[in-house]
Parts: sequence; C-alpha cells; structure tokens
Amino acid sequence: MSLIVQKYGGSSVADAESIKRVAKRIVETRRAGNDVVVVVSAMGDTTDELLDLAGEVTPFPEPRELDMLLTAGERISMALLAMTIKGMGMDARSFTGSQAGMITDSQHGAARIVDVTPVRLREALDEGSIVIVAGFQGFNRDSRDITTLGRGGSDTSAVALAAALDADMCEIYTDVDGVFTADPRVVKKATKIDRITAEEMLELAAAGSKVLHLRAVEFARRHGVTLHVRSSFNNSEGTLVVNPQEGENVEEAIIAGVAADLSEAKITVVGVPDIPGKAAQIFTILGKAGANIDMIVQNVSAAETGLTDISFTLPKAQGPSALQALRAEKDAVGFDTLQYDDQIGKLAVVGAGMRSNAGVSAQLFQALSDAGINIEMISTSEIRISVVTRADTINDAVRVVHTAFGLDGDQDAVVYAGTGR
Amino acid sequence: MSLIVQKYGGSSVADAESIKRVAKRIVETRRAGNDVVVVVSAMGDTTDELLDLAGEVTPFPEPRELDMLLTAGERISMALLAMTIKGMGMDARSFTGSQAGMITDSQHGAARIVDVTPVRLREALDEGSIVIVAGFQGFNRDSRDITTLGRGGSDTSAVALAAALDADMCEIYTDVDGVFTADPRVVKKATKIDRITAEEMLELAAAGSKVLHLRAVEFARRHGVTLHVRSSFNNSEGTLVVNPQEGENVEEAIIAGVAADLSEAKITVVGVPDIPGKAAQIFTILGKAGANIDMIVQNVSAAETGLTDISFTLPKAQGPSALQALRAEKDAVGFDTLQYDDQIGKLAVVGAGMRSNAGVSAQLFQALSDAGINIEMISTSEIRISVVTRADTINDAVRVVHTAFGLDGDQDAVVYAGTGR
Repeated sequence: MSLIVQKYGGSSVADAESIKRVAKRIVETRRAGNDVVVVVSAMGDTTDELLDLAGEVTPFPEPRELDMLLTAGERISMALLAMTIKGMGMDARSFTGSQAGMITDSQHGAARIVDVTPVRLREALDEGSIVIVAGFQGFNRDSRDITTLGRGGSDTSAVALAAALDADMCEIYTDVDGVFTADPRVVKKATKIDRITAEEMLELAAAGSKVLHLRAVEFARRHGVTLHVRSSFNNSEGTLVVNPQEGENVEEAIIAGVAADLSEAKITVVGVPDIPGKAAQIFTILGKAGANIDMIVQNVSAAETGLTDISFTLPKAQGPSALQALRAEKDAVGFDTLQYDDQIGKLAVVGAGMRSNAGVSAQLFQALSDAGINIEMISTSEIRISVVTRADTINDAVRVVHTAFGLDGDQDAVVYAGTGR
Repeated sequence: MSLIVQKYGGSSVADAESIKRVAKRIVETRRAGNDVVVVVSAMGDTTDELLDLAGEVTPFPEPRELDMLLTAGERISMALLAMTIKGMGMDARSFTGSQAGMITDSQHGAARIVDVTPVRLREALDEGSIVIVAGFQGFNRDSRDITTLGRGGSDTSAVALAAALDADMCEIYTDVDGVFTADPRVVKKATKIDRITAEEMLELAAAGSKVLHLRAVEFARRHGVTLHVRSSFNNSEGTLVVNPQEGENVEEAIIAGVAADLSEAKITVVGVPDIPGKAAQIFTILGKAGANIDMIVQNVSAAETGLTDISFTLPKAQGPSALQALRAEKDAVGFDTLQYDDQIGKLAVVGAGMRSNAGVSAQLFQALSDAGINIEMISTSEIRISVVTRADTINDAVRVVHTAFGLDGDQDAVVYAGTGR
C-alpha cells in the first residue's frame, strides 16, 4: 500500500462543484488501495477577500491576527472537502496545521517549518481514514500561536508532510497539465516536460516559472520527495520532479526549459570608487533595507577614472526603498548617481545537461542576436544562463530561444483559461 | 480594577464599520480602567452562508466537519476585531475556544461545557492585553476535536468565561436596548426592565423572550453571574439580570414581563385509558423520539368511559416525528386518535412577586376574557402563568395583559430595524 500526498490549490476547490470533483478524485485514489493525505488551499478568492476585510478595519493589520484571520480560509475548504468525502461513504477527517503537527518559527505571515510531528495524521491513516490537512498554516510551540507560511505555503505544507510521513509520492494538483518547456501562453509550441530534476526545477522556479513555488521545490530536493505536478481537471500524467541519486545514470536534456520574469527592476550605481569593500558596503546597505537582490553585474573599471558601475536586479516593489537606502548613504559609499529601470525582462534557460555541453551560452546569444534582441546583463549558474533584455522584447526572446534549442513540439499546447495559482 | 466580559452578537459585528464601532466601545471600557474579555459571534450571516455551502456539497454534513467549518466564522470576526483594536493603539489578542480553555463534551453541534480553563486569557490580561475570544466554540479533550455549543452558544460562552474568570459583570450586547416587559414590536407601550432576577429571566426566556438564550441565563443563575443586557448601538443602560442572595431584601415586581411564543404546536392524545402508567408510557415514547415537551395538560376522565385526553405542546418542527412515534405505539398505549394543532399561541406572565401575591391568575384570566380571547390550556409554575390561545389572537392577548397588569409605559418604546439575533 502506497502513501500519496495530494495538494489542491484554490482554483481546484473554488466552489461546491469543484470540491465534489476533487473529492471524487481523492476517493478514487483511496479505492485504488492507497493511503491518502490531502493538503488543501483556501477556496478561490477567499484569502484575497479576507485580506480586503482586514484592509477595511485597519491599515496595518497585526501579523498575529492576520494569520488568525487568513487560516479561516483553509479551515472552510478542508471541512467542506472532508464532509463531501464522508457523504460519498468514505471515512475522512480534517486537521488544522496545528493539529497536523506543522511546527513553525514565530514569524507571522512568513513562518518557516521547524518540525513536522504528524502523530494524529498517522493515527487517522491507521484507522483507514482519508486525511485532509489545511495548507499554508502552522503553529509556533513557544507562543502557542497560529502562523502562516506565506507565499507558496500550501505547496510547502504538502512537501513537508510528504517528507515527514515518508510518502511515496507528493502530487501537486493545479490548473495546468504540468511544467512546460516555456509558458504556453507565450510559446504556442511549448511542450509538457515529463520528467525534470529538482535541481532544474529549482532554477526554473527561481527564474520565473510559476507552476511550483521555489520554496516547495527546495524542500522537496532537500528531503528527497518526488513531486508529480498535474492537472486536477483531467487524468493526464503531469510532470515528475525527481531527485536522482548520486551516480545514478540519468540522461539529462541539455535544456529543460525556458523561463521569463517581468517582475524585476534594475538599479545601476554609477561611478563607484573601484577599491576593495565597496561592493560589500553597497549590498550590506541593500540587505538592511530588506531588498532581495537577484542578478549582480560589475563592469571592469575604466582605468583612467578609477570608477566602476555596479548593476543589480530586484523585485520592482522593493525598488523605491532600495533607492532611498542607497541615497541616504551616497557620501559614505562615494558613488556619482543612481539609475533606475523598471522596463526590463529576464530570460533564463535551464538544463542539467549544460554541465557537460559546451557552447550553450554561445547558442543562446546567437539566437537572441539573430532576432535583433539586445542583451543588457548576463549571469550564469552551473545549470542556468540568465539574460536581461528590454521588457517589451521578452516574449519574442522566449520564443526564439525555445525554437533555437529544439524545444518546440509538433502541435500547439492546450492553454486553459484557469485562474492561475 | 474590574474585570468585564462583553459579548457581541453577529449583528453587532456585521461589517467593517460595525467592527470599528464595537472596537471603539471596547477600547473605552479598557481606558476606563477595566480588564476586558470580549466574546464575539460570527459576522452577520456568515454562519448561514457556511451552512449553505455545506448543504451544496452533501445533504448530511458530518457533525465533526460541520463544527470545523462553522468555527471559521468566529475566527474571522475575532481576528478582525483584535486587529482593529491593535490599530487603535491598544494591545489585543484573539483566542479560539480551544485556546481559551473552553472544554466541552464530544456532542458536535450541541456540545455542553464541562470545564473552563482560561489560563492563556489570564496571562494575556495580566500582560495588559484586551482579550478577544471566539464564542460558540469549544474543544473536546478526549478526541482533541473542535466542537460548537449550538443555539445560544455565544451567550453561553460569555457567561461561562465570566464565571471562570470571576468577572464583575457580563455584558451581553445586542441590537435592542435590553429586556422589555413585552415585545415592543407587539406592545407599543412596552417598557425596558431595569432589573430582573435570573429566575424571572429564565421563565421569560423559556416562554419565548428571545433577547437572552435560556441556556446562558441558566448558566448565569447557577454560577451567580450578573448579566447586563444592552444595546451596542447606544450608551443607554440596559437590563441587569441579578442573582439576589438568599434572604436579600429585594422588592420584586408582581409581574416582570409578558412573553409570547408562536413556535409551538399542540398534540392531543384522545381516549387514553385512565389507568396508572399511561402518561409515563406516552412521554417515554415521545422522549425516545427526541421531542422537547413544554406544557402538559390532562383532563379529568369522564367516569362513564374510563378514558381521558392528554394534551401537550412541543416545537412545531418536532410535530411530525412525535406523531409518527405515537402512531407506531397506538395499540400498546390503547388510545383512540391523535389531534394535531399548529395554530396555537402561548402567552406567559412572569414575576417573582407572584409568590406572595394571590389573585394574579384570576386577574390574567379576567383580562383575556374581557377581550373575548379563549383560553385552551393553562400551566403554572411558582413565578409564571402560561396560557395557550389561538395563534391569531396572541398579539391582542399580550397587549391586553400588558395593560391589565399596569406595565404600559408613558411613551412608545423605540423599535430598531435590527437584524434580530
């Protein structure tokens, strides 16, 4: 008997009909002889509606109370799902994050999981019950307060439970068929990836692929959890995210996929004295301002001036505070000016096969050049190459790169008018 | 420093504006130098909306899951209220029924409170915080499951907490100004009662007065909690529900108030053999069918037949199942026929002063007779007289009795277009 963890997002349980459809799938999985643990998000727009309510009563909701408020969302969906399954004649029990033993630190709104003690889930499974768990939420043991995991929380809940229960598989149900070689809304001939390593998935998620949250993939990689990303609207096989053992002979595609991201801005610090410690000084200031820096590029300094330029990208929302923090330290750092650019796009090609295949970057740059797309920044990791271009060329860039690396499928991908994640 | 428990019903926290108004009142109570514990119901129609959702996914929701679902309602209102108060610059913390130590039995949907261990509330109060608690919900220690207290649950939560915390006062906020001598929508000259004993309030609640739930009043009487029933829409003094000490010299009004109830039906079992044990047999059958019997009247038997008639009233909703249960035992009991009448109204006059004042029943019957209203059943307790009349005469009956006992005020009562309780 296998133990399967299934995670359903908000769009999969948006209304009574959707909940019944999901319940049917869960019952089928149970009837096929598996133990089933289900992690569920809040229904449709519930979380946004609760956030709106909070905004109506106070401009800056207390984080502890905001967590108390938001966790009502999953409480509703999990109870409805459990009673639906009960109504179908199967035993099912719902558990809050706290009841499920999801222990976190005390950082309300963005809590980190510190331990998972699913004693009650194990008991319920042993009694033959289907287990339904509220995603996104946990419990701090010291304050005895309810916490939420923040963005990507439900995916992370599912992976953490799969690891703690030593599940055979963690299925992430969503409104798309799996992970694609590129966003099918941009690249018509994008194809579903059948199998990808967690390492590659991590780079794709970091580069803007929205199907799986970075944090959940990181957790899955660290704990060796196999993920199956698939649609809750059909029975097609989705994408397996695997963790090959050291030395395991895996034939890896040179390029697994192409991702794009329009959510970042670029800041250039112009005229920085080219002396040791200046970069450290700048990024310490930015770190204190809470900026999440992504790409960093420093040009060679012009010898005659002894000055250099440092550029970096960060989420647009953090742009103003980062600029303010730098301006406040202008004299201490000794730079000339700041340039801010929020019209950039980032493209990344990811593939574990890159390690053993030279020439991938040359091929990438050539494809962009042929299409007349200018490259403004470059950054690479072992299995990823990222470039920054103008925002309005990013979709063209993704398409030409997808074609250049031979990723185009024979037919157009099916795009669902889903509500996204 | 006094400790005050305040309970706000759903209509008092129906939207963001109402929550802000309630928060202001709580903050004022705290600023006046009191410790404050607030018990809050779900916002407006939330509970009904959640019940509708449950009905959409399954015809018979599992009680455990229904409780899990419904408790999301108070979770939302309590978190919003706590963050509103926090936004006003006062410390406030919300607690679920379980966190508040509201220990119940395991009867989902109608759990009884078995213990209250408000350790965390006491800690929060000691730290100077305003405490917000979800009404209506509790926790069963054996199953470790969430429970709800059923009808009147939030009032009962408030009274139980007031008792456990040894509060100086339990304020029940509602959308009317207090307890009235009669329903102001029926009797224009009804007056607000300033002070009433818990014993009288109990009889009024049992007789159909809807301002306070019977169960909460019972709890308050048993634990000596003083209640203050008042409006959340103004600052007027409401009605004090007091527990005079044995021997305390209280001048008691002969009649405290008049209540009416149109929710009951009458069943008459015709032709019951007038031999010992027959009444016991009938009411055992009804008890097993789950019928809550209110008034019972047995006529003297006609000597020549040796048969008697037994009439009783019960909630209309329980009529069909009670009839069915009796019909199934017709031969065993040996009665002739059953008569069912759901067009009855019940009127009760309540007053502790009745004990020492003869002639109250005569005065009541005379007033009804003068108005041409026929009495079909009579039942009395030490401090209450109830009569059953035709349903369509009940409002007239309340008005003439209210006048006959000198309860009419000098001016018309203000009736709010509230949402009721």
